[in-house]
Amino acid sequence: MKLRLGMIGGGQGAFIGAIHRLAAALDGLYELTAGAFSSDAEKSRATGGLLGLPAERVYASYQELIEQEKQRPAAERVQVVAIVTPNHLHFAPARLALENGFHVVLDKPMTFTLAEAKQLRQLAEASGRRLCLTHTYTGYPMVKEARQLIAAGTFGPIRKVYVEYPQGWLSGFEEGTGNAQAAWRTDPARSGVAGAMGDIGTHAFNLLEYVSGLHVERLCADINTVVPGRRLDDDGAVLLRLAGGASGVLVATQVAAGEENNVRIRAYGDRGGLEWMQADANTLLVKWLDRPTEIRRAGTDYVGSFAQHNARTPAGHPEGYLEAFANIYRNFALTLQAEAVGHTAAPEALDFPGLEEGVRGMAFIENVIASGRSEQKWTDFIV
Amino acid sequence: MKLRLGMIGGGQGAFIGAIHRLAAALDGLYELTAGAFSSDAEKSRATGGLLGLPAERVYASYQELIEQEKQRPAAERVQVVAIVTPNHLHFAPARLALENGFHVVLDKPMTFTLAEAKQLRQLAEASGRRLCLTHTYTGYPMVKEARQLIAAGTFGPIRKVYVEYPQGWLSGFEEGTGNAQAAWRTDPARSGVAGAMGDIGTHAFNLLEYVSGLHVERLCADINTVVPGRRLDDDGAVLLRLAGGASGVLVATQVAAGEENNVRIRAYGDRGGLEWMQADANTLLVKWLDRPTEIRRAGTDYVGSFAQHNARTPAGHPEGYLEAFANIYRNFALTLQAEAVGHTAAPEALDFPGLEEGVRGMAFIENVIASGRSEQKWTDFIV
Amino acid sequence: MKLRLGMIGGGQGAFIGAIHRLAAALDGLYELTAGAFSSDAEKSRATGGLLGLPAERVYASYQELIEQEKQRPAAERVQVVAIVTPNHLHFAPARLALENGFHVVLDKPMTFTLAEAKQLRQLAEASGRRLCLTHTYTGYPMVKEARQLIAAGTFGPIRKVYVEYPQGWLSGFEEGTGNAQAAWRTDPARSGVAGAMGDIGTHAFNLLEYVSGLHVERLCADINTVVPGRRLDDDGAVLLRLAGGASGVLVATQVAAGEENNVRIRAYGDRGGLEWMQADANTLLVKWLDRPTEIRRAGTDYVGSFAQHNARTPAGHPEGYLEAFANIYRNFALTLQAEAVGHTAAPEALDFPGLEEGVRGMAFIENVIASGRSEQKWTDFIV
Amino acid sequence: MKLRLGMIGGGQGAFIGAIHRLAAALDGLYELTAGAFSSDAEKSRATGGLLGLPAERVYASYQELIEQEKQRPAAERVQVVAIVTPNHLHFAPARLALENGFHVVLDKPMTFTLAEAKQLRQLAEASGRRLCLTHTYTGYPMVKEARQLIAAGTFGPIRKVYVEYPQGWLSGFEEGTGNAQAAWRTDPARSGVAGAMGDIGTHAFNLLEYVSGLHVERLCADINTVVPGRRLDDDGAVLLRLAGGASGVLVATQVAAGEENNVRIRAYGDRGGLEWMQADANTLLVKWLDRPTEIRRAGTDYVGSFAQHNARTPAGHPEGYLEAFANIYRNFALTLQAEAVGHTAAPEALDFPGLEEGVRGMAFIENVIASGRSEQKWTDFIV
Repeated sequence: MKLRLGMIGGGQGAFIGAIHRLAAALDGLYELTAGAFSSDAEKSRATGGLLGLPAERVYASYQELIEQEKQRPAAERVQVVAIVTPNHLHFAPARLALENGFHVVLDKPMTFTLAEAKQLRQLAEASGRRLCLTHTYTGYPMVKEARQLIAAGTFGPIRKVYVEYPQGWLSGFEEGTGNAQAAWRTDPARSGVAGAMGDIGTHAFNLLEYVSGLHVERLCADINTVVPGRRLDDDGAVLLRLAGGASGVLVATQVAAGEENNVRIRAYGDRGGLEWMQADANTLLVKWLDRPTEIRRAGTDYVGSFAQHNARTPAGHPEGYLEAFANIYRNFALTLQAEAVGHTAAPEALDFPGLEEGVRGMAFIENVIASGRSEQKWTDFIV
Repeated sequence: MKLRLGMIGGGQGAFIGAIHRLAAALDGLYELTAGAFSSDAEKSRATGGLLGLPAERVYASYQELIEQEKQRPAAERVQVVAIVTPNHLHFAPARLALENGFHVVLDKPMTFTLAEAKQLRQLAEASGRRLCLTHTYTGYPMVKEARQLIAAGTFGPIRKVYVEYPQGWLSGFEEGTGNAQAAWRTDPARSGVAGAMGDIGTHAFNLLEYVSGLHVERLCADINTVVPGRRLDDDGAVLLRLAGGASGVLVATQVAAGEENNVRIRAYGDRGGLEWMQADANTLLVKWLDRPTEIRRAGTDYVGSFAQHNARTPAGHPEGYLEAFANIYRNFALTLQAEAVGHTAAPEALDFPGLEEGVRGMAFIENVIASGRSEQKWTDFIV
Repeated sequence: MKLRLGMIGGGQGAFIGAIHRLAAALDGLYELTAGAFSSDAEKSRATGGLLGLPAERVYASYQELIEQEKQRPAAERVQVVAIVTPNHLHFAPARLALENGFHVVLDKPMTFTLAEAKQLRQLAEASGRRLCLTHTYTGYPMVKEARQLIAAGTFGPIRKVYVEYPQGWLSGFEEGTGNAQAAWRTDPARSGVAGAMGDIGTHAFNLLEYVSGLHVERLCADINTVVPGRRLDDDGAVLLRLAGGASGVLVATQVAAGEENNVRIRAYGDRGGLEWMQADANTLLVKWLDRPTEIRRAGTDYVGSFAQHNARTPAGHPEGYLEAFANIYRNFALTLQAEAVGHTAAPEALDFPGLEEGVRGMAFIENVIASGRSEQKWTDFIV
Repeated sequence: MKLRLGMIGGGQGAFIGAIHRLAAALDGLYELTAGAFSSDAEKSRATGGLLGLPAERVYASYQELIEQEKQRPAAERVQVVAIVTPNHLHFAPARLALENGFHVVLDKPMTFTLAEAKQLRQLAEASGRRLCLTHTYTGYPMVKEARQLIAAGTFGPIRKVYVEYPQGWLSGFEEGTGNAQAAWRTDPARSGVAGAMGDIGTHAFNLLEYVSGLHVERLCADINTVVPGRRLDDDGAVLLRLAGGASGVLVATQVAAGEENNVRIRAYGDRGGLEWMQADANTLLVKWLDRPTEIRRAGTDYVGSFAQHNARTPAGHPEGYLEAFANIYRNFALTLQAEAVGHTAAPEALDFPGLEEGVRGMAFIENVIASGRSEQKWTDFIV
């Protein structure tokens, strides 16, 4: 049986709402059943209509959605709420959903502030409901392979990690051109204390900690607002100290004019290392001190259990961003389905980002912005 | 409203059936409503159960599916039948579906023989129903961009075309190891007169004619069965003469050990040319005699209307094989929906493979096998 | 001591003469001592002056060079004659040089006709002098690695070989624009019976036989003159039968507008295969049926003795076309030096193209052009 | 006439000495005439013998070389001295050579300390002799193209620069294994205050300032010694502030196990940017905000005068590290030859690294190590 999904946010023109719908649809594990697609009731209704939802399941506000769905019979009501609004509208609907018995899929970053994130973690744990955070890039099969190889000690202890997320789309003053995506992402009232660091820096940070299996402990950030008039950072580079003595560099920028979204990670131990990039997402390069680099590929028989679990097609039929996104939805569904019948989900299904990743992501935002403003070189990563 | 989809074939373990379901689900335009997933009633039922279908919509045969669905009320009954069986089981269910008022999605190659294909074309045209053939690779946005650029005369008249589809998975006698996919594809009774040429050669042929906009007129084929004991061809190379004086080479092999599915096309006029390959599916290289090669990318604003119509994510978020496959389903749905209300679909929506491509694909199979057996150098491409 | 080199051809503006001089200079094993750079005495003198040669070592004709150098004291006179003239001027100077006691470096193709090539082979063998033919591409370290891996049976017997040499520079009627390189290459009186097939097809053929270790036995060619007014072929594709049952495809074209010189080879046995291309010349991809592709790299410790012998820099410092060309000169020098003191050179030094490759190259030209004109499908490869 | 070259250092087994000889030989503009290849007279003699030098031009010390060559007739004596010793032996021979009327080619980094570098600059300027510093990577044609494009304002003012030089060869304690290259590079008495930062960091720094045309003004460095027992840094990452408000990141590491020498630079203005890497040295990617990335290629007609001047072969015949190195030697020779006859060399010939680059490189070493040790976040770049 498909999980019944209600969506908050994601009206026409919203980028990430459409992505969530595609990701949820792909594996046939969810059915979009209800939505409060906009705080503008008319717009919400129009979106719901286009999506083929019955009018009575399209709401004018997230509160209405939660209240009314809660009163429907168990076999009808929404089971999972996907929240795809701008950052300042994450906490309140997530809280309401959890407190009213709904599981939550939440777009990143988790909340508007770290304090909210910690509060939400507490609420969620108390609620007995699950929260899933859509850090897309860790949904790629070959990112999972990277993590599994490192966790197995393949390369020896990790000593260096480089992660980067270069974009170019905010090279000009896009927020002045009517671009809604640019507008909210550069608005402190909607995005939070960070711009680029919140939007893509958190993805890079999540990727780094996920793949390396190491926590950031100290950091030293250069945070810039390159485009005149912009109100939040659009560029940054961060020196990192990781647990166990490793070090690293994180780069996230939205002013690398001509770059798309080629998020990329490299990590090295004393025996070898690995490299993954979104532009060649089905490949993981595995490098060795004294023998040829290997091109490990998604969809093959020789990859580990996590990569196998998260692929749908045989090697050579590329899977992409939507499939990575869908892996998060799929693993969340498998986990909920297992738990619904009293089982523990398999480790591969349980491998989706959640409360801890969300809290650490918010801590990253606050720490990195504080470091950027500080004259002190190294500052502790405080959660 | 979603189109109600019934599936014939695609029981557990079948590769292409699962792909069709993912492709149909992605955009939320179809709802899998019924199925005859296997000629083994038990297996069909099991598959239906796993897919969450109500027992009464799971049938023991395709005949049963068509007869019973036909008797359901219009608002309930299946509207499109997807046929995902081995080649010898394409014609009969397609015919029955069309004659009973269903639209058909058919996996390639169209039929078992060219004669069947021509008969099916006639039937389909008479039926007033639509048939869509899933030649996946022409569903990629940058393949559509390639076609649109060439059609616009960007490079001058096309003079050379190279297309190749190298695979390695049949390098050994896989059909002797219990591999069901290998078994039917190498079995003349189920696959038809060709092995590799039917399975992947037809894809390469379709890609070549689609992108170049030119028909093959003469050919000279070297067709081989490399693996001892195999009953059909597993390898071939074909010299081609195209309309208007262009020439080309088509390579399709299943014994290039270590290759995955990197189908690739290059075409050249007198001013420049282009190159596309599945391994880097979101990129189209556009080459010029006297200026830098351009890396055209899916999801950008500068690509043409066909590429734009067939992409879901902004540049840099890779789309893959499933999205290409889904584009075919999506365009078919858009066409059916438009026609259902008396409109003509947009050219971009109408751009899916159908009867003509199916008949030419079957002609390719028969002509290429005949040429392979012939001592004559050039033979006409007869349809 | 450096070998004293005399050059025939290679006046100002000649492409390949300059390349020969760079290649001979790189390793400090040759000293350009004399030259007859042009049949125009004035032009020869001017080139010699620019190259810093004393006037008395610059000759007005190849005959003069050979006669006068022969009369110099052994410790002064030229030891090796490099012939870098157009094809119709290969045989006569090569013959004269060999018959007068000089070793010869000869640009490819060996001669103007196959008959000449066979005659030259006989002469050379009788002369006790060495002849080296500059098939550049087999001088690359990773091409040598490819050959060594295949020769060691790494992939099992080779079953498929694909080789291609796509160029675009003759997409227009360049010979009508004053381009001297285009003029002689498209002139039957200077180039011979073939254009593209002689100029680059022979390179592709040599690469194929060298890497695979297999001889071509039968072929079926499609040979075209694409550009109106051109007097020789500028495009072709050839189906091949190799010794031992392997088959292959050779493509060589000069009208792939926008292509540079990316000569490329792929070969497959039943356990795996390999791929090399000039655009990434320091890399050899080694592919396997059931494990990751390996990126073997020039300059590493793990490559075989032939690749190691032919590299000058550690991995990651790319070597290119000139180094590959220089490897031929270097190995020729090492062989001559060893033989001068009564030793047999090491196998790695002896590995340069010579008489056999030259004769087979000329046979390729004549056979492929004949096949192109024939209505017969398969024709024997006659030497 | 060739320039007569004397070499100091570069005995058998020395990596960089052999590279210098290859680079000087390639274009036939230098003749190796004399050498003091080792402070061990026997070893110097042996190397000289292998190189075919007459015994009287092989010296037991650099002092002897300079003194004795000075006394030879002008038409015989060495004109250029190449110094290829470890860092602690750069200043003294360079000084002696300059003061005695020889031009100098010096391997990087310029000296052992910044103070020496500034003193050498002063000496050199007073001497009327030229000094050339072999920062190889800025000798590549497409690096020169990058600089020329940026200098022309192609992308608008540069806002971001990323440069990296990842190596893996010092991932283990190589200096304990008898590896002479590792031994001196990790020895403070021979390498100086820095290890990786001096060996490869200076290259990255030179590349960054050369391509961007901008000077570093402030920096914040994380400098590490990763391998236990090592006496100098083997890893570092540096945040940078450049003139005009640009910022950047420089990474140099020798413990990225499995990496070769893929030095890489990216730079961005507000209209677009570029990317170059040694692993694909003949390509420059030129990226744009709103149109396709261009693949600019060495050897083409459309590149600028600097790239054209520094290429020897047509597009598609790759040139590599030795050619880049040879470009420095070649441009130095062209400059000396022009100046010898009272001309000013062309801008393209004058474009080789010299005193300024040397002083700034040494300043980089001292500033970056000091920053690494500092608790202060940003420190000024002091020269």
